[in-house]
Amino acid sequence: MKAVLLNCSLKKSGEESNTGALMGSLVREFNKNNVECILIRVADFFIPPGVKTDMGEGDEWPLIHEKILESEILVIGSPTWLGLHSSLAQRVLERMDAMISEKSKSGVPVAYNKVAGVVVTGNQDGAKQVIANIFYALSEIGFTIPSQAYTFWNKGPGPGESYLQSEEGHKWAIETGKLTAKNLFFLARALQKSPLK
Amino acid sequence: MKAVLLNCSLKKSGEESNTGALMGSLVREFNKNNVECILIRVADFFIPPGVKTDMGEGDEWPLIHEKILESEILVIGSPTWLGLHSSLAQRVLERMDAMISEKSKSGVPVAYNKVAGVVVTGNQDGAKQVIANIFYALSEIGFTIPSQAYTFWNKGPGPGESYLQSEEGHKWAIETGKLTAKNLFFLARALQKSPLK
Amino acid sequence: MKAVLLNCSLKKSGEESNTGALMGSLVREFNKNNVECILIRVADFFIPPGVKTDMGEGDEWPLIHEKILESEILVIGSPTWLGLHSSLAQRVLERMDAMISEKSKSGVPVAYNKVAGVVVTGNQDGAKQVIANIFYALSEIGFTIPSQAYTFWNKGPGPGESYLQSEEGHKWAIETGKLTAKNLFFLARALQKSPLK
Amino acid sequence: MKAVLLNCSLKKSGEESNTGALMGSLVREFNKNNVECILIRVADFFIPPGVKTDMGEGDEWPLIHEKILESEILVIGSPTWLGLHSSLAQRVLERMDAMISEKSKSGVPVAYNKVAGVVVTGNQDGAKQVIANIFYALSEIGFTIPSQAYTFWNKGPGPGESYLQSEEGHKWAIETGKLTAKNLFFLARALQKSPLK
Repeated sequence: MKAVLLNCSLKKSGEESNTGALMGSLVREFNKNNVECILIRVADFFIPPGVKTDMGEGDEWPLIHEKILESEILVIGSPTWLGLHSSLAQRVLERMDAMISEKSKSGVPVAYNKVAGVVVTGNQDGAKQVIANIFYALSEIGFTIPSQAYTFWNKGPGPGESYLQSEEGHKWAIETGKLTAKNLFFLARALQKSPLK
Repeated sequence: MKAVLLNCSLKKSGEESNTGALMGSLVREFNKNNVECILIRVADFFIPPGVKTDMGEGDEWPLIHEKILESEILVIGSPTWLGLHSSLAQRVLERMDAMISEKSKSGVPVAYNKVAGVVVTGNQDGAKQVIANIFYALSEIGFTIPSQAYTFWNKGPGPGESYLQSEEGHKWAIETGKLTAKNLFFLARALQKSPLK
Repeated sequence: MKAVLLNCSLKKSGEESNTGALMGSLVREFNKNNVECILIRVADFFIPPGVKTDMGEGDEWPLIHEKILESEILVIGSPTWLGLHSSLAQRVLERMDAMISEKSKSGVPVAYNKVAGVVVTGNQDGAKQVIANIFYALSEIGFTIPSQAYTFWNKGPGPGESYLQSEEGHKWAIETGKLTAKNLFFLARALQKSPLK
Repeated sequence: MKAVLLNCSLKKSGEESNTGALMGSLVREFNKNNVECILIRVADFFIPPGVKTDMGEGDEWPLIHEKILESEILVIGSPTWLGLHSSLAQRVLERMDAMISEKSKSGVPVAYNKVAGVVVTGNQDGAKQVIANIFYALSEIGFTIPSQAYTFWNKGPGPGESYLQSEEGHKWAIETGKLTAKNLFFLARALQKSPLK
């Protein structure tokens, strides 16, 4: 089984990512269940705006799109900016919009029988809204969302430390991340046995 | 298999409900698959504010809570007011908050292995946000959310007709409602075969 | 000048309210500017569901509605439940929906030239979404929203202490509450001098 | 008086924009009040991800940032994709995040005493959530939001025509756009007379 984990941090892979750090809790759990993990730092790729799978010259989204199609599990990780998911997370959702009309061999949208979850970090507030909005988009595209399919970390009111600068709340965020990975794995397996057609 | 459908219209059952009318498209599909449907008009019940399963004297939520526990499928129907789900839909979510810490015999939250979907009507806009917010709450409580697990009807910008006063857009809303019922049924069955524990 | 502060806690006035405690930071600042404060615990009143100003027998909303009309400033305080504003906050918004079509002597909606802000408490996350959604509703109804017209307190990820059980983050939340009150007062005064007609 | 109107369509200026078309209703009203309008098609500019005013080599955001500082009115226009504002609208908000700590001569954030509104188009639903989320961000940054400071156009449920392909609902959307422009103009003038300091 394969999982694609898209880290939608605004920063490229040379820089430390709080969201990426928390996404690591899912990777460790996936590995225990022999789920192969493909980690993608979205900011490293050239992904122009648009709502088609291929926006033409130089577009690197098709590489990511292919990885999603080959996998059973998708995890979207996003920081919060002004209480909202990042522009790169929104870019990813816009590009996945085309998947609504791409059909599998059995005639259902290609995301059917794939499962998805969400990871959010931020230093104030906004995680639940980000999860809600991404859940909606994922369901419209065709993904199935397990029980308690998210983890998040925030720091409470006002300016403050980021995830990697603090130790508070890590235990809950990491345990919940493991639970998310476990719930994703079990549901993906249930759908392999009894796929929607 | 059983489905509970909670109509969170602000109006009691003597009055016509747009949301209830659209929820009917799911009922007809459930019936085809021999899913027993329990339709509940939330406004008919005395449900005081709170976040416990039983808020004491006169509280009628425990009756609904029991029906949810006995079913495999939950559908929440809500009108939009100011672009948001109704106060009765929010009341229902608040009362279901207690289910997060209620465990089944196998030790998981009671909503695990149950599936849920959302139906929204309104005369302007707001359906997608309502669906997103209810999806988040349902996932936190422990429900599993299938592919394309919602339908909605709205009327576009400005004051205008309600669902039952118009015929526009009914075809899409009803077809999508049937799809929602189908997706809920198939996922509930998949989870019966391969339950999360 | 008068301010109405609606505390939409799920609990009645005999019980301690975290939201009410944080709303106190605005009251102290309003008092400094001789703004008369009318504090209302919404759960103490019988407010049936509906979207009219008077829903008939026993309805106590008209008392609150009158206080809002007599004031220049409105503050809505809400806890977060499942990352959303309380069912009582939503009830208040639904009942204020009727104000969109109630006109002042100069022919504009009655909420024109009134200003509004939001206070939110919760033990995890959701404040920014609650503020966003209430801001939208307030603007649709006709209120004007000042710069930085909100304060909130949350506790970060996972179950944890409430506002009154913790001391963390109070400084920022209270200072921001004072700023909100100051911004509301100055904007209300600016609109008194130059009313929209 | 000056207004900056940011069209956050995913398409560059050679292509037709539904959002831009509806934004035109505000421009015509602004012109009547001698408000100079600066129309910016965000997709035409190179705006890298980040939360600073200047992200370095090639960054064209500083040009837009300067126009915003020179103006009294800001209008953000966005399409809806999956019920959410566009990745370019989110990019703009992220870049404006830096304005929270940029202060004017009188020591308040630079956006104080500036007013802002929102225009949304889409072919299904999502406008109210987009407006809510952008209102929150604008208030956090320091803008003041007038009564009924938005217009939108959507098409109701299911796939369908875009704004420029349909005539339905245009009257309401355009009238509401004019009202938004009027409310923005009057509030900007009120704040010129009685600025917050």
